[in-house]
Amino acid sequence: MDARASGFYKPHMSENLPCIILDRPQLAENIGAVARVMGNFGLTELRLVAPRDGWPQEKAWTMAAGAQWPLDGAMVYATVEEATADLQVVYATTARNREVNLPVITPRECASDGMGKAREGLKTGLLFGAERTGLETHDLIHAHYIVTIPVDPRFSSLNLAQAVNIVAYEWRLQIMDAPGAEFTKNQDPPAEMKHLVGLYEHLEAELDVSGFFFPEAKRPSMVRNLRSSLNRASLTEQEIRTWRGVVTALTKGRGRVLARLAKEKAEKGE
Amino acid sequence: MDARASGFYKPHMSENLPCIILDRPQLAENIGAVARVMGNFGLTELRLVAPRDGWPQEKAWTMAAGAQWPLDGAMVYATVEEATADLQVVYATTARNREVNLPVITPRECASDGMGKAREGLKTGLLFGAERTGLETHDLIHAHYIVTIPVDPRFSSLNLAQAVNIVAYEWRLQIMDAPGAEFTKNQDPPAEMKHLVGLYEHLEAELDVSGFFFPEAKRPSMVRNLRSSLNRASLTEQEIRTWRGVVTALTKGRGRVLARLAKEKAEKGE
Repeated sequence: MDARASGFYKPHMSENLPCIILDRPQLAENIGAVARVMGNFGLTELRLVAPRDGWPQEKAWTMAAGAQWPLDGAMVYATVEEATADLQVVYATTARNREVNLPVITPRECASDGMGKAREGLKTGLLFGAERTGLETHDLIHAHYIVTIPVDPRFSSLNLAQAVNIVAYEWRLQIMDAPGAEFTKNQDPPAEMKHLVGLYEHLEAELDVSGFFFPEAKRPSMVRNLRSSLNRASLTEQEIRTWRGVVTALTKGRGRVLARLAKEKAEKGE
Repeated sequence: MDARASGFYKPHMSENLPCIILDRPQLAENIGAVARVMGNFGLTELRLVAPRDGWPQEKAWTMAAGAQWPLDGAMVYATVEEATADLQVVYATTARNREVNLPVITPRECASDGMGKAREGLKTGLLFGAERTGLETHDLIHAHYIVTIPVDPRFSSLNLAQAVNIVAYEWRLQIMDAPGAEFTKNQDPPAEMKHLVGLYEHLEAELDVSGFFFPEAKRPSMVRNLRSSLNRASLTEQEIRTWRGVVTALTKGRGRVLARLAKEKAEKGE
């Protein structure tokens, strides 16, 4: 803080550090408190999804107690999908959610796993939900892991900045431990989320044509199950192209038969 | 939180848990935020040394967001000496202080060492300083260890509740590591490989019909790529059933058009 005040502070920018994504934060004070925590633990990149009271908000800068650079550089997005589009690994901090089949890990495992991936050059993000509601189930389809802070189940309501604090602290320990050794990779990196979403939307559109999502009321949970199971595969860009080819191949000819059936119906005057 | 609201909450009292001691806290809001953190991590005993604005303070209860028991039971003392009088081991969280020759340990070492001592029946306390000034050198004579949170030295100004949060979190991990504590898993186990192979063979048979594997010489490597990418998802049995349903849905109707095309060809005598 002192360094900043005296004007020679220059935040340490690194592609290897995770960005912090706040989904629909309500109070500007909490956004500011998150920025302060980011300053404490050396994180710089803040993304805001649809902040309730708009952005920027003066109160955030007040609460940041000098850690203004995450706020100055904060990017605002309309949806979690957009905020995670260029990320390759997304860790969502939330209470256990039985509706989503993603690996549940601790903050320590998140930092350990994430630092490994960051050293391979992957772009990582830490996603946090709104103050009262946390992350919605449908937001978790943009995540690869669920990070659960081991709170006392009898009083599990964590303040937003406190949740960021714990996860950022564990990352800090990893960053400080960072050995010089390079990670060897035997795999291409996972694609950015936007490519994965492209595959999902392609697949789901074809499944809509098939009447797969029946009854309609179950569509959201069915989509969630499909997406979260495939998220776990961390597909590369090449693999995503291959799987899009699979979807196309499987549906080939179907358009023709459907068109023909429609035509026959029309001819019969149905 | 829910348990509390419904009235049957009973804080878990244990002689083995450390008390939290705040030395001359300034803002009641921060005391309340500390209580909330204590609730999150299962701590119950709060001691206040000369709170600047007196005690009790309504704002503390508001900020505690339901974790009122540390506040309800808080004891007020005039000095650190009095507040630590009955303790056997005191850990003071502060930046490194060269004027005091005490062992400097991390929050993790504090929790590990402290839990060991608590299990021996020793009474432990975690001492934190005032918001702006931290712990004074003369207060440290009541401590056995200095606990230093590994913040970025370029922005080291930690919020009081955030400091308590980190240390209490590390204690929580130690408490949970105690025999009997369990971290529950979110996920069903991955299916046996035979179920996965069933899905693969189903998919590949349909792709053969589509002419997807072209040229034929590339079929083995294409199959390998599909299988290995999906292996990484560690699908459960239920998910495998769902994905088989996807394959069936996508290919639906195709058999009909292929049969019709074959028939037309035959009729044309091709």
